[in-house]
Amino acid sequence: MNNNSSTSELRLSKNERLSLETNSIFKPRNFKNLKPKAFDIFTFNAGFKKRLDDLLIIVFKDIVNVQCIYSKTSTPSAPIIWDKKNNKGKVKALIVNSGNANAHTGKEGLNIINNYVKFLTKFIGCKKSEILVSSTGVIGETFDPLLITSKIPKIITNNKNSLLDAAKSIMTTDTYPKISIKNFKIKNKNFKMYGIAKGSGMIQPNMGTMLAYIFIEANISNINLKKLIKNNVDNTFNAISVDSDTSTSDTLMLFSLKNNKIDLSKKKNLDILNSSLNDLMKELSLKIIKDGEGLSKIIKVKVLNCKTKKQAKNIGFSILNSPLVKTAIAGNDANWGRVIMAIGKSGENIDQNKIKVYFGENLVCENGSKNKKLNLKKINKYMKNNIIEIRVIINKGDSSHIVYGNDLTYRYIKINADYRS
Amino acid sequence: MNNNSSTSELRLSKNERLSLETNSIFKPRNFKNLKPKAFDIFTFNAGFKKRLDDLLIIVFKDIVNVQCIYSKTSTPSAPIIWDKKNNKGKVKALIVNSGNANAHTGKEGLNIINNYVKFLTKFIGCKKSEILVSSTGVIGETFDPLLITSKIPKIITNNKNSLLDAAKSIMTTDTYPKISIKNFKIKNKNFKMYGIAKGSGMIQPNMGTMLAYIFIEANISNINLKKLIKNNVDNTFNAISVDSDTSTSDTLMLFSLKNNKIDLSKKKNLDILNSSLNDLMKELSLKIIKDGEGLSKIIKVKVLNCKTKKQAKNIGFSILNSPLVKTAIAGNDANWGRVIMAIGKSGENIDQNKIKVYFGENLVCENGSKNKKLNLKKINKYMKNNIIEIRVIINKGDSSHIVYGNDLTYRYIKINADYRS
Repeated sequence: MNNNSSTSELRLSKNERLSLETNSIFKPRNFKNLKPKAFDIFTFNAGFKKRLDDLLIIVFKDIVNVQCIYSKTSTPSAPIIWDKKNNKGKVKALIVNSGNANAHTGKEGLNIINNYVKFLTKFIGCKKSEILVSSTGVIGETFDPLLITSKIPKIITNNKNSLLDAAKSIMTTDTYPKISIKNFKIKNKNFKMYGIAKGSGMIQPNMGTMLAYIFIEANISNINLKKLIKNNVDNTFNAISVDSDTSTSDTLMLFSLKNNKIDLSKKKNLDILNSSLNDLMKELSLKIIKDGEGLSKIIKVKVLNCKTKKQAKNIGFSILNSPLVKTAIAGNDANWGRVIMAIGKSGENIDQNKIKVYFGENLVCENGSKNKKLNLKKINKYMKNNIIEIRVIINKGDSSHIVYGNDLTYRYIKINADYRS
Repeated sequence: MNNNSSTSELRLSKNERLSLETNSIFKPRNFKNLKPKAFDIFTFNAGFKKRLDDLLIIVFKDIVNVQCIYSKTSTPSAPIIWDKKNNKGKVKALIVNSGNANAHTGKEGLNIINNYVKFLTKFIGCKKSEILVSSTGVIGETFDPLLITSKIPKIITNNKNSLLDAAKSIMTTDTYPKISIKNFKIKNKNFKMYGIAKGSGMIQPNMGTMLAYIFIEANISNINLKKLIKNNVDNTFNAISVDSDTSTSDTLMLFSLKNNKIDLSKKKNLDILNSSLNDLMKELSLKIIKDGEGLSKIIKVKVLNCKTKKQAKNIGFSILNSPLVKTAIAGNDANWGRVIMAIGKSGENIDQNKIKVYFGENLVCENGSKNKKLNLKKINKYMKNNIIEIRVIINKGDSSHIVYGNDLTYRYIKINADYRS
């Protein structure tokens, strides 16, 4: 057999070529930043990675309220098991390491956490239940807790880091840090909220290998935090998919910093806060998608007029997660036949003769067959965009859902055939 | 941004390099062949493809019994809608074209079938309900039925083709024809069965873009045919997955050629036939997997000791369809952490501390964490094989299931970003 064939024979689109660069083509040019007043940030290189910072310690000035959502996996990582068991909605400190997920590490994994958490409780004087932990990286490897405990004393002597440093320290295959800052006003009083997150593989409906930490500079009860997180996760973090894989470690934490009184007694005020949080969560989740492993394009799938929201979501993810749809988009191909295939594969009870599919503003099929008046020149031009919107009208009811993902490229294969997660 | 990066920078494993060849590395060296006595095969280049044969017409000498299974898609192709509506278990002829799937073509698609079927009924003198049709290829395009009707008169003058010719004429992105022949003996009488199939993308649990036609040279009632097909589809065609996508056109047809009397009154005899058919169906389905788009390796996932068969199947496909598992295998990486992730993602109620995972004979994890005695040299050598077996022991019960698939490579992306299906 001839071994001389090389990958240089592969024809690549311009975006595909760009996607072979180290950085996502969507990498922002500028990053917002701040140093929070209500907590101190410390980042270190603890040795999980060779050179980069890989350990984040956040110490809150007060004990603050927190609500968390975790991966729906049935093989959760040790930090998720630990947090769920210990935390009671109050938190004094957060420890996150990247480079080792402490997942599928059995009792030893839990002992490791106990070890470094205990060390920190003694050092800062708080209860075990007031410390939250997260880990992301390789699955199945334990580590010496000394990697973390040896850094803890330095939180006295070291300079405090910024929110951007924090965002950088939790990255794995991410090509840029994800940070988002929003301001909102209630009763003429200004408030701030900000968050950091990391992707960028194993991102899927029920929270991908995604860590996200959001801080609201306002005194909010746990009951309201719970409402807020529940209200907003469905159309943000649970509406994205990089590769349909769900991680063992996905975590979203929402902290109320308690440093500012806020009047949430009126529904109107809670709505303002809710809407601002939704903006922030949407921004962070899109930043994750825009850094999806090896992507060359973003895909937005809008599924309209379904019988139920669940149907719309199911059809949306069936399209978004189809390797055949994803590769077609990577190849600038308005291959709506594969969209029809993916709708069919969802198994939802629909009538294919009533479906309309659009790529951008281009109607590609209706009444059970292709749109014969389709302007090929126009749609081919559209498909060269970095962001492709697929709009599907099912004509079964009034429910709709939007999901976000990305295409499937050579670089995804490269990253995941070479990187040990 | 620097545009000079090229795919030649990509590090590829030996198998990955080989997979960039046109043909699957599993392409057989030799093909069995025969010319059936009970029916005539005609293949043509009708113009769906540029040069290769793309039209298959089979005319049975007698009216024979048939049972079919179709894709579970909710957007079935016109041939599936047509067959389901018209056929009553008796068949005189079969028409298959490749290159155009006649899918999502609305009423026009059905009219096209009506047109060429009617033409054939007049030509060979049979009922409309006695003709079966299949199509595979591009979705969403209609075609002129003259492409088919203009060839029909030639079945009188043309030479008869072989089973191998038939297998070739139904190929799309397949790199080799799939043919299988088995002999079996009942009451000292020899019988023959043979089948052809095509893959090789959109292959997934509920029948991928897979067409398969199996002929048994024995007179079998439709009740028994139905039993036989049902008994054997679950651990053969429904146990394979190339890319988790389900096609609009998947079809399996099982024909009894009626030319030989067979005594199936005793369970023992039916068992012999059943077992022989299972061998044939397994062989054909593995031939499809071995020609999976762009594959460099076969992955066999055995899930043992589950609570139910459904649980075993669900976990098996969750592993087999995980892009992260598939790319790891392509990269010769015994990344069992991703297997644990995929088990968790299945959502099945299991205890991760009781799972055992093997790659080949290498135990990689048990009791909730990695096997510290793992022989790295041995497993790294194992991972270079062309066929990788992942064995997962769940320890929840007595049910098990085996599924087959392949890895995810650069070539899959190439085929599917460039080919319009």
